[in-house]
Amino acid sequence: MMLTPAHASSSKFNEIAANLAATAKALHARGWLSGTSGNLSAVVQPEPLLLAMSPSGVDKGKLTAEQILLVDEGARVINGGRKTSDETLLHLEIVKQRRAGSVLHTHSIWNTILSDLFADEQGVAIEGYEMLKGLEGVRTHEHREWLPIIGNLQDMRELAGNIRAVLTEHPNSHGFLLHKHGLYSWGKDLGEAGRHIEILEFLLEARGRTLHLRSRGN
Amino acid sequence: MMLTPAHASSSKFNEIAANLAATAKALHARGWLSGTSGNLSAVVQPEPLLLAMSPSGVDKGKLTAEQILLVDEGARVINGGRKTSDETLLHLEIVKQRRAGSVLHTHSIWNTILSDLFADEQGVAIEGYEMLKGLEGVRTHEHREWLPIIGNLQDMRELAGNIRAVLTEHPNSHGFLLHKHGLYSWGKDLGEAGRHIEILEFLLEARGRTLHLRSRGN
Amino acid sequence: MMLTPAHASSSKFNEIAANLAATAKALHARGWLSGTSGNLSAVVQPEPLLLAMSPSGVDKGKLTAEQILLVDEGARVINGGRKTSDETLLHLEIVKQRRAGSVLHTHSIWNTILSDLFADEQGVAIEGYEMLKGLEGVRTHEHREWLPIIGNLQDMRELAGNIRAVLTEHPNSHGFLLHKHGLYSWGKDLGEAGRHIEILEFLLEARGRTLHLRSRGN
Amino acid sequence: MMLTPAHASSSKFNEIAANLAATAKALHARGWLSGTSGNLSAVVQPEPLLLAMSPSGVDKGKLTAEQILLVDEGARVINGGRKTSDETLLHLEIVKQRRAGSVLHTHSIWNTILSDLFADEQGVAIEGYEMLKGLEGVRTHEHREWLPIIGNLQDMRELAGNIRAVLTEHPNSHGFLLHKHGLYSWGKDLGEAGRHIEILEFLLEARGRTLHLRSRGN
Repeated sequence: MMLTPAHASSSKFNEIAANLAATAKALHARGWLSGTSGNLSAVVQPEPLLLAMSPSGVDKGKLTAEQILLVDEGARVINGGRKTSDETLLHLEIVKQRRAGSVLHTHSIWNTILSDLFADEQGVAIEGYEMLKGLEGVRTHEHREWLPIIGNLQDMRELAGNIRAVLTEHPNSHGFLLHKHGLYSWGKDLGEAGRHIEILEFLLEARGRTLHLRSRGN
Repeated sequence: MMLTPAHASSSKFNEIAANLAATAKALHARGWLSGTSGNLSAVVQPEPLLLAMSPSGVDKGKLTAEQILLVDEGARVINGGRKTSDETLLHLEIVKQRRAGSVLHTHSIWNTILSDLFADEQGVAIEGYEMLKGLEGVRTHEHREWLPIIGNLQDMRELAGNIRAVLTEHPNSHGFLLHKHGLYSWGKDLGEAGRHIEILEFLLEARGRTLHLRSRGN
Repeated sequence: MMLTPAHASSSKFNEIAANLAATAKALHARGWLSGTSGNLSAVVQPEPLLLAMSPSGVDKGKLTAEQILLVDEGARVINGGRKTSDETLLHLEIVKQRRAGSVLHTHSIWNTILSDLFADEQGVAIEGYEMLKGLEGVRTHEHREWLPIIGNLQDMRELAGNIRAVLTEHPNSHGFLLHKHGLYSWGKDLGEAGRHIEILEFLLEARGRTLHLRSRGN
Repeated sequence: MMLTPAHASSSKFNEIAANLAATAKALHARGWLSGTSGNLSAVVQPEPLLLAMSPSGVDKGKLTAEQILLVDEGARVINGGRKTSDETLLHLEIVKQRRAGSVLHTHSIWNTILSDLFADEQGVAIEGYEMLKGLEGVRTHEHREWLPIIGNLQDMRELAGNIRAVLTEHPNSHGFLLHKHGLYSWGKDLGEAGRHIEILEFLLEARGRTLHLRSRGN
């Protein structure tokens, strides 16, 4: 791993890389990063932006700190090594739009199912759950969280642009779904992003399992 | 962690704190304490009351004994450190009403779902299962357990008062649900509280999965 | 643990006790022995019968070899210590009727649900699955396995008698269900009993999840 | 384990055997190899063919490298030891037809359920999911994967012939289902085969859980 002298604060990168690898193993163990799917990032330096990023095509259950890449705001890999995740541009877009310190992307059964079932509505509304209080800035269960659903594309630049528009239109959303693809969430740091992912995955599962059951104002 | 001389029996507190941390990890591994949700307590001294309590906003899958707080019956933190769980008043109320040695609060998919689906009935009845025999005082499967559902509030004092009323009205209930929030149960010690949580979570899942299926006197 | 001189082959008992404890932890990890439910046994000596048995009211996820009891054919505890499982008489009955080397009893969500849903039919038929070939004596997937459902009782002697009758009437059944209680299976040794439990739990879950879905000759 | 001098490259076999055992434990932990079901293989030498193969009737959660067999293209065991898996002929057929480096066979709840529910259609179509991009050769989510369903037989030679015919008819399929039996997939090596299994199991579960829910072009 070659870092330029300007990134001599490699102990910070090493720590972040280790945390990303640990988080990847934990999320994989929950079934949310199967088959090399998903990706994880965390900001090493905000200005100019340096982002630690999971590599492409790697089993996230076996991800090591040594495999973590360092990219700049143009998605160029600085520390040699593997090819970055295809979705690096999306992480960069979210970091910029939300001033996030970390972005996590999971493929779970329930987030995938709901991203399709609610596609016509272009989003999923979740309200009234105490669990919502774990989302940054939410102080009461009487909160309505809107998770937009964005169409999936292979053109990452076009998709990043669509994400920018949706994040601008929905400044209070703590995450969004890509159709038949997965969930994106973020936080001021990896810990908060991880907490948001856990909360949103929980709520999506609760919604998914009650789609056919009578509910009060679900 | 500063203990006053009167709490020099810190070896007891240390042991309880270690057990609470271990229990938190086990419950988190089952998906019942995701996203920093839930809380755990155990009585260190009954009179005057000293209660070991999990802190607020901490990942329960990584909770350590050093993070456990010690509070008095006024919910004041005695051993410095972090902010207590918002729900400390609820734990204190249950300890008082049920003379409990430990109180556990979980957010699981099924307890959350059923807390909403049965909200109009204001409770869930579970009867006829052998599993009920693991609840304290229950000697036969021919037992009808009533889990009241209480409306969720952000005002903890008001909620504690509602809990007091419900626990008084239903002296035989081994737990209750907070609407779209979660499950509370308790026991004479942490082991019994943990066993009660396992049993009630099991039964709520069995009820939840059969809501649409024909059942004999379910 | 006091063994009489006649049971000086304690190394065999110790080995069996260690295997029972390990099996208990594995089955508990699958959610099949929650809340101290379930029990496990293995024959130490067939004639006169000596049976290693899990104790009553113990968390099976933390069961140790030292907690395993040794009972005789009258269900009397030989090695002092804890109270035996309430269901010791049932294990002894099955050992006798099926000449089993080990008996396992689990409480899983799906075995509990199906024990109730098929109660009027007094049993569950499972056929056509390749998985059935893992059951002793079954050579083809074109096998029809019948799992009788027996009413649950608290009187263990009466229940043991009912089990004897059912096992006699259904000599080819590899297990049976107790209504709203759980599954019993057995094998020539603990390994075979464990394999049977895994297979039957799998098949009961597959049946349970397809109750509302179109199936060919399910 | 006796290897002939020609197979002195035993360090390669040892490495492959260790990886197969590790993969078996991982797949068993996911519930996909319960009750000694399923099997795993990896090519040690392509020409003449030498295949490392899991043995018959062994608990895959406890499989060790020492238990792995080495077979030739006639399914004869070269390294002594246990009886091979009954399905060795199927692995050999797939290795030949697909020039695979590894073949994996799992019995999961969802692959078993769907193998029956779609039996009349003789296959399951899965399309539009981003997860499909993890399958070899697939570059976009706008891909339609067809998993043929083949009738289950006990005559392995006849079944191998049917598999040959189906693989020839569907050259782009990355896997197939055996009716009420399970899933087969493969890859250029064990890593790719494992990734394919994870992806297909995920997609089959997503399909299975939405069978009764409204979906756009599911």
